[in-house]
Amino acid sequence: MAEDFNVTAYEVEGRVDYARLIEKFGIRPIDAALEKRIGKDAGELHYLIRRKIFFAHRDMDWLLTEYEKGNRFYVYTGIAPSGGMTIAHLLPFIMAQWLQARFGAEVLIQIPDEEKFLAKRDPNLTLEKVHGFAYADALNIMALGFDPKHTRIFLNTEYAGKLYKQAARVAKHITFSMVKDAFGFTGETNIGTIFYTSMQAVPAFIKSVEAGKDVPCLIPLGADQDVHFRVARDAIAKLGYPKPAIMHNKFLPALKGGAKMSSSDPDNTIYLDDAPEVVKKKVNRAITGQQATAELQKELGGDPDRCSVCQYYRFLFEPDDKKLAAILDAERNGTMLAGEHKADLAARINAYLERHRKAKERVSGSMADVMLGP
Amino acid sequence: MAEDFNVTAYEVEGRVDYARLIEKFGIRPIDAALEKRIGKDAGELHYLIRRKIFFAHRDMDWLLTEYEKGNRFYVYTGIAPSGGMTIAHLLPFIMAQWLQARFGAEVLIQIPDEEKFLAKRDPNLTLEKVHGFAYADALNIMALGFDPKHTRIFLNTEYAGKLYKQAARVAKHITFSMVKDAFGFTGETNIGTIFYTSMQAVPAFIKSVEAGKDVPCLIPLGADQDVHFRVARDAIAKLGYPKPAIMHNKFLPALKGGAKMSSSDPDNTIYLDDAPEVVKKKVNRAITGQQATAELQKELGGDPDRCSVCQYYRFLFEPDDKKLAAILDAERNGTMLAGEHKADLAARINAYLERHRKAKERVSGSMADVMLGP
Repeated sequence: MAEDFNVTAYEVEGRVDYARLIEKFGIRPIDAALEKRIGKDAGELHYLIRRKIFFAHRDMDWLLTEYEKGNRFYVYTGIAPSGGMTIAHLLPFIMAQWLQARFGAEVLIQIPDEEKFLAKRDPNLTLEKVHGFAYADALNIMALGFDPKHTRIFLNTEYAGKLYKQAARVAKHITFSMVKDAFGFTGETNIGTIFYTSMQAVPAFIKSVEAGKDVPCLIPLGADQDVHFRVARDAIAKLGYPKPAIMHNKFLPALKGGAKMSSSDPDNTIYLDDAPEVVKKKVNRAITGQQATAELQKELGGDPDRCSVCQYYRFLFEPDDKKLAAILDAERNGTMLAGEHKADLAARINAYLERHRKAKERVSGSMADVMLGP
Repeated sequence: MAEDFNVTAYEVEGRVDYARLIEKFGIRPIDAALEKRIGKDAGELHYLIRRKIFFAHRDMDWLLTEYEKGNRFYVYTGIAPSGGMTIAHLLPFIMAQWLQARFGAEVLIQIPDEEKFLAKRDPNLTLEKVHGFAYADALNIMALGFDPKHTRIFLNTEYAGKLYKQAARVAKHITFSMVKDAFGFTGETNIGTIFYTSMQAVPAFIKSVEAGKDVPCLIPLGADQDVHFRVARDAIAKLGYPKPAIMHNKFLPALKGGAKMSSSDPDNTIYLDDAPEVVKKKVNRAITGQQATAELQKELGGDPDRCSVCQYYRFLFEPDDKKLAAILDAERNGTMLAGEHKADLAARINAYLERHRKAKERVSGSMADVMLGP
């Protein structure tokens, strides 16, 4: 039976059925019991979990058992730079920062500067260009409130002196057939892209290598990245390290609808450095852009799940559940006009981006301590 | 038409027809004109070239033209450690040292500690074990008389901070189909082995990267290693660097006959750390081991090309052409008994190994300056 959606490491297409995704990936839903346990251990429950935006996991029960025994985990996540950072990129980092604050977790952030460089045919996407994006990403990440004493960020090509050796150990246990099936590689795939998943695997166990004992690892990630660890988790276990736990987030919808807000479609996306007028323009188009008729607009407006504006409140711009419910009700009941909605959302996004810009200024002085050099 | 020999990066089988190899690889013989030119530029001609042990090349004419214009080349070669170093491993290094002395060349030596670790299924061959071999290899290499001021050696996993970024740039231009055909990879090949050839390519242009201008490179290597550069030379050119020139050496025959003396068959091989009695025993077996009857022995003894003992004189233990001719004549004419031959060769090997041990002691103090660290 053909799926009407497709989630791979390289693209997300169609309207994602997350229940089906859980089956396909062999992952588990974050159920009520696990939610409760996370809330108890953390002292509160993050809205991204409560709203099932982080909807699935691997081995969280094991991780929390270790934590409850006093064996702290570290958090590993990352971003592959290929252009400016968007608000959709923020989700795993918001979760990572919360985990750091609530569980006292060290955070390790990989910026795989080679990944998109290798995967994209664009001859203008040089490694030097990617490095520019990478350092901008690092600053954007630290502006989210990470503790600079307990957060480290590295670019793969700069930190390869530490990574490559461990990547070779992982790679020995991963055959071409395995990545061919998992990533859809062909004979035309270049050998850097084929090897790359080993580099993404390393930070999931490197703290165990360094400490000489098992250090649990938790990876918050967009669900499209799960494939890397479906491939690598067995290899990591074969090397004698604990398999990392994983928390999966859903994709922030594109402004004009669609599966995932992608940084390769600038008009469908809010960049962290978008100017206020640009944000207004994009949000305006999001609301009016996709619906051809007032009738259709009314129909979709009646279903907040299919309304991008509502989703933006839900994912990022209204963490208070009661206030969110009021907004969604107003959408559903038509008591708030589309124009009011879009103006309010744009104002919230712009306020967020303004705070973010100021936060970047504040943290820029600590970046040298945070970045792991060659 | 089936070949009765096979030369790949991973094995050498059968009796190699070097004229056919030149055709198959698309390389060129080192002819009389090139020999003369090398001799003129160097001020002398090395016996390994004169005897056509270095028998073929790529782009040596271009390299010498650059040299004659005052544009010096550097020399790159290497060894993949998987056990002790054998006398067969010495050939490219003897040539590299001579090129350094005669052409004032900087020498860069790669020890790809991950290569055999990745390629061999042996679970006992850990990276730690390979590192032990690697440092022993480095000392053996420096004992050959390299100038420590102008020679640098690195292990890939330790120097990956410099190599991986450039390897990714190479890898972008090499597809799985290309390495599949060139190396005989299958779906069961691991992704580290698939990527590895990019790491072997980097030192062939890294001096151009560092200098910010074209620095010619010459690679003396065993002919089985040519395949790495058949694949990489076009990628290097696409990155805008000069393709490296290459000089290919023939394989030192196995003691008991066979295509290539391999370090994975200890009895067929002389290790640099073999004790004198071990050398005597192995050389004894070399002469008597392969021939079943006196008749056959007489027949093969009459053909120095097929006599391992004669080949050892020719490749390594009698650089004087007149003295070598006398030895081969004695072999051909039966004026020297096999026992005398083997005793003389074993004595020469042991004297060589003893000098080598002393040289290692002399150079051990300079290793820290020579090794490129992380």
